[in-house]
Amino acid sequence: MPPIADPAALRRAIRAGDFRAPTTGQASGYLQGNLAILPQALAGDFLAFCAKNPKPCPLLGVSEPGARSIPALGADLDVATDVPFYRVFQHGQRRDRVDDLTPWWRDDLVTFVLGCSFSFEESLVRAGIPLRHLAAGRNVPMYVTDIATHPAGPFGGPMVVSMRAFRPADAIRAVVLSDRHPLAHGAPVHIGDPAAIGIADLARPDFGDAPVLEPGDIPVFWACGVTAQVAIQALAPELAITHEPGCMLVTDLPAEGAAIGLSAT
Amino acid sequence: MPPIADPAALRRAIRAGDFRAPTTGQASGYLQGNLAILPQALAGDFLAFCAKNPKPCPLLGVSEPGARSIPALGADLDVATDVPFYRVFQHGQRRDRVDDLTPWWRDDLVTFVLGCSFSFEESLVRAGIPLRHLAAGRNVPMYVTDIATHPAGPFGGPMVVSMRAFRPADAIRAVVLSDRHPLAHGAPVHIGDPAAIGIADLARPDFGDAPVLEPGDIPVFWACGVTAQVAIQALAPELAITHEPGCMLVTDLPAEGAAIGLSAT
Repeated sequence: MPPIADPAALRRAIRAGDFRAPTTGQASGYLQGNLAILPQALAGDFLAFCAKNPKPCPLLGVSEPGARSIPALGADLDVATDVPFYRVFQHGQRRDRVDDLTPWWRDDLVTFVLGCSFSFEESLVRAGIPLRHLAAGRNVPMYVTDIATHPAGPFGGPMVVSMRAFRPADAIRAVVLSDRHPLAHGAPVHIGDPAAIGIADLARPDFGDAPVLEPGDIPVFWACGVTAQVAIQALAPELAITHEPGCMLVTDLPAEGAAIGLSAT
Repeated sequence: MPPIADPAALRRAIRAGDFRAPTTGQASGYLQGNLAILPQALAGDFLAFCAKNPKPCPLLGVSEPGARSIPALGADLDVATDVPFYRVFQHGQRRDRVDDLTPWWRDDLVTFVLGCSFSFEESLVRAGIPLRHLAAGRNVPMYVTDIATHPAGPFGGPMVVSMRAFRPADAIRAVVLSDRHPLAHGAPVHIGDPAAIGIADLARPDFGDAPVLEPGDIPVFWACGVTAQVAIQALAPELAITHEPGCMLVTDLPAEGAAIGLSAT
C-alpha cells in the first residue's frame, strides 16, 4: 500500500480500522506526535514538566479535560480513535493494548501531544544523510542518561536520548538540520563520548534496537520523547495512556516551519 | 584605547597611521576579510578557486584590475592603505612588511577579500560559548589536512582548518551558530577524530599556537582562509600580497545576515 499523503485522510483510515501499522513514512511533511493521556489531577504538573523540558518533550498541543479533539492539531481529529494502537497503564502496570480508547475514556482525561523525531529524520533523509537504523530496518537505539530533567511537581527523572551515528561531516549537517526542527527535539544534546552522559555501553540500549555504527562514525544523541514515558512510569498514576511505539498521532501541522502552536481550544 | 565601533572610522584611523594593531575585537558586528592581491594574469583562476571552495575561501568582494576601491565592501575604502600591515611576496619569498602598499601598487593588481572567522567567533562569544584560545590569549591552531580543495587552474592543494575545542553541548551550539555565518566559513568541516582528516598530532599545529583542550572536550574543525595563502604560496607567483595575520580588512558588511554581495564595481 503506498503511503497516505494527507494527514486527515490517514487519521480517517485509522479511525475506520483500515490502517493498523506504524505511522513512519506516512503523511510525509506533517508533524507526528507522541501521545500522553493523563487524569486532570496530574495535567498541570505534566504541562509544566513539558514546558521545562522542551527538548525531550516539545509540546505540540494539549486538549481540554475530557475533550477528544485538539483543533490546533487538526480539524477532523479524535485522539481516542486516530492512533493505530494505544497502551493503557494502571498504577504503572500495562493493562491493555487497544485500537479504540472509547471504553477507557473519562471526562477528566487530558491529552498531551509531544513532537517526535520523524520530521527531523525525514529532513536528514531528504538531504541524503544515511540513517543507519533505517537502512538496517531497526528501531533507533535509546538510552537512559545521567542528564537530569527539570522536575515539575511529581514528574522528573533522567533524560532519555536516541542515538544516530554518522560520518563526521554528516554529523555536522545533522546538527544543523535538526536544529531547524525545534518541535521534533531540535539540535542534539550530546555528541561523541557516550560515557560523558552516563551511557556505560553503547551496544546495549535501554530501549529500541542495538545501534549500527560504521568505522569512523561519531555517535550523536538527541533528546527523546521516551523521557516523558519514563517520568510517567516512575510516578505510576492510577491511569495513563500512551501510543504504541511507532504508532503516532499524525497532525495537520507542517513539519517545515511549524511554530509552537500550543492551543487548548 | 576602546574599540572603534564604526568600520569606516577604523579604516580612516588605519589609513592615517593611528591604528597599527590586529583588528580582532574592532568594529564589532561587521565582517572582516582576509586579503589576497594578485596580478591580473592569475585573477581569473583564483576567482574560480574561491568559487569552487567557498568554505575555506568565502569571497566577500573582488576589485577591478588596478582599482584600490571595492565599493561593495565600503564607500570609503582603500585596499592599499586600510589594513594595518601587509605582507609582500615575490616568487614565494617574503620580501616586505609594510603599512602602505602604494610603493608596490601596479595597474594590473586584483584584490580579493575573503571572509574570516572573526564574525562567527563573535557570535559564539555572545552566546556564552567559551573559546579556549581567546581565554588563553593564543592564536587559534591551524592544520594542513588531507582534504583536497577543488583545483582551479594552477590553484589547488590541501584544505587548511582551524580547530576549536568545546564541551560537547557547546560544540553542538557552535555548529548551529557558525552555520549561520556562511561568509565566515560556515559550519565546521569535521568534528572528532583529528586523524580522520590527516592530522597526525593535534598538539602540533602547522600554523598558530598549540591548542587548549579541557577534559571531555571534543575538537571541532572549520575550513580556514589560510587555505588560500597555502595555495598561493605553492604557486609562488612573481608578486602576491596578503594581510599580516590578524590584521584584516574591515568592511561595512554586517556580520549578521550578510548575503553574498560579490561585486566587481
